[in-house]
Amino acid sequence: MFIHKQKLQFQSKPEKPDAVYARKLQEVIGGQYGEITVAMQYSFQAWNAHIPGKYRDLLFSTAAEEFGHVEMLATMVAQLLEDAPLGITEAAVQNDPAVAAVIGGTDVQHGIVAGAGARPVDSMGNPWSGSYVTASGNLLADMWSNVNAESQGRVQVARLYHMTDDPGIRELLSFLLARDTMHQNQWLAAVNELQAEGLEELPVPSNFPKSKEAAEHAYTMYNFSDGAAAAEGSWASGPTPDGHGEFSYSPEPLEGPPMPPPTHPDARFYGTTELPNTVEKAAGTVQDKLNKE
Amino acid sequence: MFIHKQKLQFQSKPEKPDAVYARKLQEVIGGQYGEITVAMQYSFQAWNAHIPGKYRDLLFSTAAEEFGHVEMLATMVAQLLEDAPLGITEAAVQNDPAVAAVIGGTDVQHGIVAGAGARPVDSMGNPWSGSYVTASGNLLADMWSNVNAESQGRVQVARLYHMTDDPGIRELLSFLLARDTMHQNQWLAAVNELQAEGLEELPVPSNFPKSKEAAEHAYTMYNFSDGAAAAEGSWASGPTPDGHGEFSYSPEPLEGPPMPPPTHPDARFYGTTELPNTVEKAAGTVQDKLNKE
Amino acid sequence: MFIHKQKLQFQSKPEKPDAVYARKLQEVIGGQYGEITVAMQYSFQAWNAHIPGKYRDLLFSTAAEEFGHVEMLATMVAQLLEDAPLGITEAAVQNDPAVAAVIGGTDVQHGIVAGAGARPVDSMGNPWSGSYVTASGNLLADMWSNVNAESQGRVQVARLYHMTDDPGIRELLSFLLARDTMHQNQWLAAVNELQAEGLEELPVPSNFPKSKEAAEHAYTMYNFSDGAAAAEGSWASGPTPDGHGEFSYSPEPLEGPPMPPPTHPDARFYGTTELPNTVEKAAGTVQDKLNKE
Amino acid sequence: MFIHKQKLQFQSKPEKPDAVYARKLQEVIGGQYGEITVAMQYSFQAWNAHIPGKYRDLLFSTAAEEFGHVEMLATMVAQLLEDAPLGITEAAVQNDPAVAAVIGGTDVQHGIVAGAGARPVDSMGNPWSGSYVTASGNLLADMWSNVNAESQGRVQVARLYHMTDDPGIRELLSFLLARDTMHQNQWLAAVNELQAEGLEELPVPSNFPKSKEAAEHAYTMYNFSDGAAAAEGSWASGPTPDGHGEFSYSPEPLEGPPMPPPTHPDARFYGTTELPNTVEKAAGTVQDKLNKE
Amino acid sequence: MFIHKQKLQFQSKPEKPDAVYARKLQEVIGGQYGEITVAMQYSFQAWNAHIPGKYRDLLFSTAAEEFGHVEMLATMVAQLLEDAPLGITEAAVQNDPAVAAVIGGTDVQHGIVAGAGARPVDSMGNPWSGSYVTASGNLLADMWSNVNAESQGRVQVARLYHMTDDPGIRELLSFLLARDTMHQNQWLAAVNELQAEGLEELPVPSNFPKSKEAAEHAYTMYNFSDGAAAAEGSWASGPTPDGHGEFSYSPEPLEGPPMPPPTHPDARFYGTTELPNTVEKAAGTVQDKLNKE
Amino acid sequence: MFIHKQKLQFQSKPEKPDAVYARKLQEVIGGQYGEITVAMQYSFQAWNAHIPGKYRDLLFSTAAEEFGHVEMLATMVAQLLEDAPLGITEAAVQNDPAVAAVIGGTDVQHGIVAGAGARPVDSMGNPWSGSYVTASGNLLADMWSNVNAESQGRVQVARLYHMTDDPGIRELLSFLLARDTMHQNQWLAAVNELQAEGLEELPVPSNFPKSKEAAEHAYTMYNFSDGAAAAEGSWASGPTPDGHGEFSYSPEPLEGPPMPPPTHPDARFYGTTELPNTVEKAAGTVQDKLNKE
Repeated sequence: MFIHKQKLQFQSKPEKPDAVYARKLQEVIGGQYGEITVAMQYSFQAWNAHIPGKYRDLLFSTAAEEFGHVEMLATMVAQLLEDAPLGITEAAVQNDPAVAAVIGGTDVQHGIVAGAGARPVDSMGNPWSGSYVTASGNLLADMWSNVNAESQGRVQVARLYHMTDDPGIRELLSFLLARDTMHQNQWLAAVNELQAEGLEELPVPSNFPKSKEAAEHAYTMYNFSDGAAAAEGSWASGPTPDGHGEFSYSPEPLEGPPMPPPTHPDARFYGTTELPNTVEKAAGTVQDKLNKE
Repeated sequence: MFIHKQKLQFQSKPEKPDAVYARKLQEVIGGQYGEITVAMQYSFQAWNAHIPGKYRDLLFSTAAEEFGHVEMLATMVAQLLEDAPLGITEAAVQNDPAVAAVIGGTDVQHGIVAGAGARPVDSMGNPWSGSYVTASGNLLADMWSNVNAESQGRVQVARLYHMTDDPGIRELLSFLLARDTMHQNQWLAAVNELQAEGLEELPVPSNFPKSKEAAEHAYTMYNFSDGAAAAEGSWASGPTPDGHGEFSYSPEPLEGPPMPPPTHPDARFYGTTELPNTVEKAAGTVQDKLNKE
Repeated sequence: MFIHKQKLQFQSKPEKPDAVYARKLQEVIGGQYGEITVAMQYSFQAWNAHIPGKYRDLLFSTAAEEFGHVEMLATMVAQLLEDAPLGITEAAVQNDPAVAAVIGGTDVQHGIVAGAGARPVDSMGNPWSGSYVTASGNLLADMWSNVNAESQGRVQVARLYHMTDDPGIRELLSFLLARDTMHQNQWLAAVNELQAEGLEELPVPSNFPKSKEAAEHAYTMYNFSDGAAAAEGSWASGPTPDGHGEFSYSPEPLEGPPMPPPTHPDARFYGTTELPNTVEKAAGTVQDKLNKE
Repeated sequence: MFIHKQKLQFQSKPEKPDAVYARKLQEVIGGQYGEITVAMQYSFQAWNAHIPGKYRDLLFSTAAEEFGHVEMLATMVAQLLEDAPLGITEAAVQNDPAVAAVIGGTDVQHGIVAGAGARPVDSMGNPWSGSYVTASGNLLADMWSNVNAESQGRVQVARLYHMTDDPGIRELLSFLLARDTMHQNQWLAAVNELQAEGLEELPVPSNFPKSKEAAEHAYTMYNFSDGAAAAEGSWASGPTPDGHGEFSYSPEPLEGPPMPPPTHPDARFYGTTELPNTVEKAAGTVQDKLNKE
Repeated sequence: MFIHKQKLQFQSKPEKPDAVYARKLQEVIGGQYGEITVAMQYSFQAWNAHIPGKYRDLLFSTAAEEFGHVEMLATMVAQLLEDAPLGITEAAVQNDPAVAAVIGGTDVQHGIVAGAGARPVDSMGNPWSGSYVTASGNLLADMWSNVNAESQGRVQVARLYHMTDDPGIRELLSFLLARDTMHQNQWLAAVNELQAEGLEELPVPSNFPKSKEAAEHAYTMYNFSDGAAAAEGSWASGPTPDGHGEFSYSPEPLEGPPMPPPTHPDARFYGTTELPNTVEKAAGTVQDKLNKE
Repeated sequence: MFIHKQKLQFQSKPEKPDAVYARKLQEVIGGQYGEITVAMQYSFQAWNAHIPGKYRDLLFSTAAEEFGHVEMLATMVAQLLEDAPLGITEAAVQNDPAVAAVIGGTDVQHGIVAGAGARPVDSMGNPWSGSYVTASGNLLADMWSNVNAESQGRVQVARLYHMTDDPGIRELLSFLLARDTMHQNQWLAAVNELQAEGLEELPVPSNFPKSKEAAEHAYTMYNFSDGAAAAEGSWASGPTPDGHGEFSYSPEPLEGPPMPPPTHPDARFYGTTELPNTVEKAAGTVQDKLNKE
């Protein structure tokens, strides 16, 4: 269960209105790698965990923290919109290209739909989607997903930092950057710990039987492009990160058998084949069958 | 540019029809972590790369390989559907619960829409979405994303392996598992190489100025849950994986200032406030203003 | 069945082109609470009605009216776009910040995709979705949904009214506002009439057996936040609107049993547990099992 | 900010596995009117509130409670899936139509993607969408939306109650039904209180100037269908619920001016008109213009 | 404007309940090529038409007819669901594999969400989307789109015909097949008439200046696959259907210049390049710049 | 399988940066009729083909070509963004309305998410969707779909041509226009060839038994609108394009039986009917039943 407190984790207050920036902030609220995503992702990973203790507690704690980040950002967006021009007509505004320009860069639903408030969407107005969430029950796979989410998220916040010079916004972003630093590090620590404790190994999933894998294709880079430089990488020779193999490099792509012949489903799917209209059609069998059924 | 060859990388032929399994295979064709996702993700990462050479060549090569995996799986799906019951009425079928049961587990669009063919959707029928793709231009962030995709993807293929005993399908899956093993390893090798070469470091993005980050919050786990076990993890004390800090643990959540007061946007957004209906309403100013504009 | 007449219910003609406003109008065409939503919602409610007569007739009539509203708005959008700058290059335009600013605020698909016409999307370009429709077969539930739709819709039209001073647009909006007034009132009248006639009562659904409900939790506000003001509301004490209970207030959240222990699904899902890698792994049982299957 | 506690508000434990029912429960987790929707909706309404005090405190409290409901249902789903057949091959299973039938009714992503865990999707596998959320800043509009959500939600839970006879599931549902009863009542109490306090009135939004509305169309039912029974309703005569008018009924639809003539946008949009290919084409002007630009 | 009449165009009544078939029928209600799509597509094409008269009148008429088809199908779905098992618990049902099998194939939202009614979704439960609609303002392009829609739609109805032997359903489908026959023919007639009247020609759009097109690439098939049979088609030699050229065939793909070098955006996007970490990093310029901004 | 070559089919290099145009180009990358759509559509049609030889080879070749078009456009977008203002703060920029105006028209995710790179989305930021793809297995139906896609696509590219005067962009567009000309022609040639060879005929699907179609409704235009001009078209009289009938025209809509009575599903769906609350309720049967189950 969750308890709400009417406090923020950190100061969240802009110096001045900025509707265009409010729109940009939506990316880290409701985007693919926004705070709603990580809050929901860590929640579902915790609910879907199969082992009690430190990993699950870490997931629950960080999930709750991230819901609080959504709140700080939504609060910031509302303040950025409070006195900003959002399309409400003013004679003066209409004739000022600078203001018109600002309006061009806003999320028009901020005004029309939300009445100057935040929304669960990204910076282009796409609604947040449950398909952004990853929670497989395999903790090593999911920790990689978390490292990824915190990396992409921190890159986006860093970019947003350079898109404003409002000290109030920058203060909040500097806090969020620090928390992303922590979370990147904590999930990487968990990646290491899962392996150190022997709970999981590489590759993910670690205990799929080797005997059932086509081992001869497990450590070779087959080159499917005409760029030759990939042969210079550490993925083309030397030991593999999972500790179980040795990389090799094939300059030619892997080429197997020819494609199997096309399928011929039941004639009642009305797919185009050479049969019904030539051989069988002549004999009338297909059409007769269709007529009867 | 891409050239197509009418060969498969590996044998792809089931022993017998199985429409229910065909539906399940859709997950690794058009799901969040299916082959379309990785093919498109590596393509966009390559097009969005800012450095020529081995990393980009690796991305182009693997992208092309993955498009070939989509093809192998689509070919398999068509064969699984070829002689399977897909709802076409047969007296015998209607009375056979086993057949009816099979039909209950199929993707009905396999029959109605595709005429016994594969579709760019996942195992629950959701169309593949461009929102599954990650390509930020930051190679370390994107390599984490690739490790994640190959980990989730391999977990899914491993699960699918245990959901059939058809030797033809299992043969293809054993091949895909091996390629996922390779790809997990290659992206991890790239993660290491990017750092070894000094191109990127942790945390991502590595050259965001430390002076602009709220450093005092960058390495502390604040506990927002009532589970205490997270304090036992390596993320609660000791050196951080990025090499720049020392973890600490706070049993209490981070608590900052109270939430700022609610905003009061322009009255013409018709938000509910205490003002228009009490103070200002009495004075008539807000309603007068609304009447005029 | 539906018959089309080439008349509008009301005048729909702007004084001058305005591509930015055309984009905003898309919200009430194809947005969550736009006219397509209500037209489709009332249609499906009528088709899904289980009782003939006045309620169903009202639904059919209003559905048809709302399709006509879509038409009036689409007609208006086409006229607003007719002579507006939509990105077609003109030397003069390129150097005029005011025109460039206008272009920044347009729906670029109005030009590229529709050739200066309306589209079934909202003001941020999201396609209209069938998920906006509510039609449960329970008329009281659905009438609440209709009151909601007409309320949100009227708020949006009111905001749009203040975003233009074109008399032609305002005339159409003043008409739509009046129809929303009617529809809000008519659905509220239906809410009252359903109860007056004894067809439905509160809470919805009214005839779910009381004996099957955890009655001790049906009229208490448990406080899950640290704000205490909610205790002052009429929902914290006194009779309940459904006439069946008395509100009470608990300053503490409802707290029940601890979470049940984590689940341990079949090892072939490759979830992370303490078992396969410690106890059972030592005994080899899990891995043996995986190898065999 | 939010704090997580590892307790549930109520007992959540099924007697036996049931993967088909687990899928159905997804509707009230991640459906249009599931618990994620109300948790997010009340959160955004609180963040978007423009008035401090009891209404906002109620929103924050109920939002936090609903996140806990998501948790109880996700926990229940994981338990229902724990020992259920999810497609993992067993010789015995394959030949048992009853088991095969069960598998036909499952969410196959429960196994393949989540490894026997809950997901942020509805019962047909559609990911939860931010477009389900309503938060306009107008409290009366939003309270109607909340009444609607709790009504639809309670209808769905009531239906689900009759779809199982597992006492453990029914116990949880009886609790959720009670909370829906409370929440329906509390939002209706808020609807009444907002009006009693003079903060809002009907119709929503209440202070849009009457002078700007086409008053002559605000209280008449125009009949757009050939069913005559709607004339018998209380929406066809008598005082209106908003207290400002008197209903009237028109057996004929409202019919205004003919549709305006089709638009003729710039020829460079390549729309089909009579001009370029007849009049102007003869004169060569359009084609000349196109050639030049 | 639209007027509703409480008549159907044709008989729509099944002989017996069939919830699985009801789900399948959803494809032609709310699928990509279902009746909602054509009703909305023809409506938007009419509203977006730039020429009055027969083409627009045809569009309006067919749009209205198609809304009536949605109605007939929704009516049929409700009847198919009326007495069908939809998951409501009955002791007898639980033990009958045949019934369980049926339930496996249903749209579970038919019961939980709609209470045994139709929904604006396809046969896999995806909500209808405005992105299915095509309306470009170019009538020849749009007539092709209509031919396509009626072709795909008729294929789907033909397949559905063979998925039932209920005479009532088949009667309705035989009617819909006939109307699809008419509509395919009418749009093809319109395609011909537009060209006969000189309003449009091939290729679409017909009056884009030839001088602005890379004419040397306009009529050659470049082969990008290793299949040689495409050279045998009428698209490899002979006159082109648009009457303006002669097909030719190149066995080799078209190959132009090498890809341009990777881009180097502003360092504040934190893309990975060789510069900031080697040359410039040594000089400190990039990091200095980042620190300052 | 696919092989990648690091060459473009044609020159793709703009003269100068233009972030607003980069956004517009996204339409033909990731829009409904963009290059991703045709690449994926032709691929799935080839995989779903039931006849080997020239048609399938043509599909494979064109699919591979179109993936190369995605690449050319993505490359162009990256170059257009390379030195363009994307929101990164510069004192000078902030005060320049012209630059601000430009920013208003950009895809803000180009900067925040992709770091100045292309994305798999359309010009309004909607992610590409698998629902854009058509592949039915019926080649005549699918060739119409391809004609449609190439027609809409060419109209969009033609419009985009007039939205820039950058010679580098125009050069690429003139190439794409030529390829669209080829592809329109080739699919039309295939339409003709399929019929000439007797593989398919009109209407699609051609061998659905005439005896199962309601022939009396197959060639009549019933007028559902009050526009009379449609009677003047070639679809109102004369021979039909499929060669099997004669058009006729009915000025009145087709009107059949009245709608069937409303359905009465199981009371446990809690739909509103007259029964439970009147007749049966009086007798107590429904409520008794609900209480028991």
